[in-house]
Amino acid sequence: MYHACMDNPLRFALPPLAALLFAGAPLGASSPPARPLSSTDIVAAAPADAWVAVPPEDLLVVDLEGGQRVVIALAPGFAPVHVANIRRLVRSGWFAGITVNRVQDNYVVQWGDATEKKPLPDGIVASPPAEYARDLKGLGFRTMPYRDAYAERVGHAGGWPVASDGTFAWLPHCYGMVGAGRNLAPDTGTGAELYAVIGHGPRHLDRNIALVGRVLSGMEALSALPRGTEALGFYREGTPRPAIVAARLASDMPAAERPAFELMRADSQSFADWLTARANRKDDFFIRPAGAIDICNALPPVRAKG
Amino acid sequence: MYHACMDNPLRFALPPLAALLFAGAPLGASSPPARPLSSTDIVAAAPADAWVAVPPEDLLVVDLEGGQRVVIALAPGFAPVHVANIRRLVRSGWFAGITVNRVQDNYVVQWGDATEKKPLPDGIVASPPAEYARDLKGLGFRTMPYRDAYAERVGHAGGWPVASDGTFAWLPHCYGMVGAGRNLAPDTGTGAELYAVIGHGPRHLDRNIALVGRVLSGMEALSALPRGTEALGFYREGTPRPAIVAARLASDMPAAERPAFELMRADSQSFADWLTARANRKDDFFIRPAGAIDICNALPPVRAKG
Repeated sequence: MYHACMDNPLRFALPPLAALLFAGAPLGASSPPARPLSSTDIVAAAPADAWVAVPPEDLLVVDLEGGQRVVIALAPGFAPVHVANIRRLVRSGWFAGITVNRVQDNYVVQWGDATEKKPLPDGIVASPPAEYARDLKGLGFRTMPYRDAYAERVGHAGGWPVASDGTFAWLPHCYGMVGAGRNLAPDTGTGAELYAVIGHGPRHLDRNIALVGRVLSGMEALSALPRGTEALGFYREGTPRPAIVAARLASDMPAAERPAFELMRADSQSFADWLTARANRKDDFFIRPAGAIDICNALPPVRAKG
Repeated sequence: MYHACMDNPLRFALPPLAALLFAGAPLGASSPPARPLSSTDIVAAAPADAWVAVPPEDLLVVDLEGGQRVVIALAPGFAPVHVANIRRLVRSGWFAGITVNRVQDNYVVQWGDATEKKPLPDGIVASPPAEYARDLKGLGFRTMPYRDAYAERVGHAGGWPVASDGTFAWLPHCYGMVGAGRNLAPDTGTGAELYAVIGHGPRHLDRNIALVGRVLSGMEALSALPRGTEALGFYREGTPRPAIVAARLASDMPAAERPAFELMRADSQSFADWLTARANRKDDFFIRPAGAIDICNALPPVRAKG
């Protein structure tokens, strides 16, 4: 009898007639829809040119023991040296056998070499620059008209969420974003130790550590892991640690096996409509649309292809 | 070799000398500390009168099969009718045997009567008022000097996070907040179906559904549950559903068994210092303190007593 607190409580249980009728209709069609298109409708109706394919060389495919797969889009436009290191680590097979060592509730899951002794392959930049922000210029940044607690401006570029001070631009620490762990010195994170955010966006980490990507698929394989019981969520000595069986770039996989994903382009009309609809939810459940949206609730839509 | 992305990477591995020396020192002590107190130091040093005990009648103790315990502070100051319903449901034993039926990644875990046929006990208000906001007046609200994407003002009152438009005040949908599921009509949530937020704060739900409390302890028993594979994260028919063995109010438990919790008071100096320290992290890990904080990253500190 209760189906509360849903993104759209009717979408699945009992699709409203108007949504069924107008889901595929172009915006501004002559028959006025009974209700505005929902964000879900807009994603479903977005044309092919509203999407940008994640290049196969930027798609990191991580298989965990037990058969779960996590797919991460890498962000060479924001952290090129870290991403180059990660590609090299992947291609050398370094991540095979690497384990999840830390799961801190409402914060991060972190994987790396628990022995801290596994030698890095040749060609790794041992001290990459602190790739915490890049020039705003040239990014194609589109500001969203909503406040942010942390940054002067937030918005999107390509298929990425972005925060900015008007001069620099950086990826925000949102649920599902992936970063390169580091030690105290800003340049100590090679990309061999990675973390994904599994809680409310710890945005205080923005510009303090390099974000290198975003989980596009399989997030639940990380977020539902048992929390570590030691300080900072590290697993206690002797606790079984989920292991990575294989990590590959999609570009190195046989064509028939390659996963493929697309992100909605920030410069598309569909994205503008989606953002407006997300900030002003008007389905039958919502009584008072927020009229705004937090950047971490506005991560560009993802779709699997093929 | 890497211990990245920590709240305070030195706190546990190698406590900085200054923190050891000054953790218990009063602010403004004559010997100048080598570094500002961290938020952790401030919590540890907060005097007794900086804390407010959660009344035992507001402390909901939920025991899950498998032995995990979740403790929730109820919020009668925000949702009195819903909380009265919940107390009545608890005291009638209604929640025993109730199951978690929905776990949607980056959103909510929801528990209730999967059969949708279990009769509610006598005395339940079947259609409580839509307790989504209350008068700001009389709340003792203290605004924090930071922006919010959703509300004109955010801050704290008592031991609670609060959002406000200057006239009304409401609890924000942050990680760990607990609400009363409802159907489409605003007054259909009795408190028999509850949810807890397990992702980035879905603040668009603010003022659209009644929040009734906050998880103080045992959050990982909810947040690490396997995600449901059906639409909206509902568990597939036949999937084992985690069951509630017992739900009690602390006030109804024998004194020796009662858990007890305190929240830091929003009107204490310790809280003001803690908030400033959280917004301006200055330990060895942080290169660029944020200078701001999101309300969902500023939930008042909790401590177990006795």
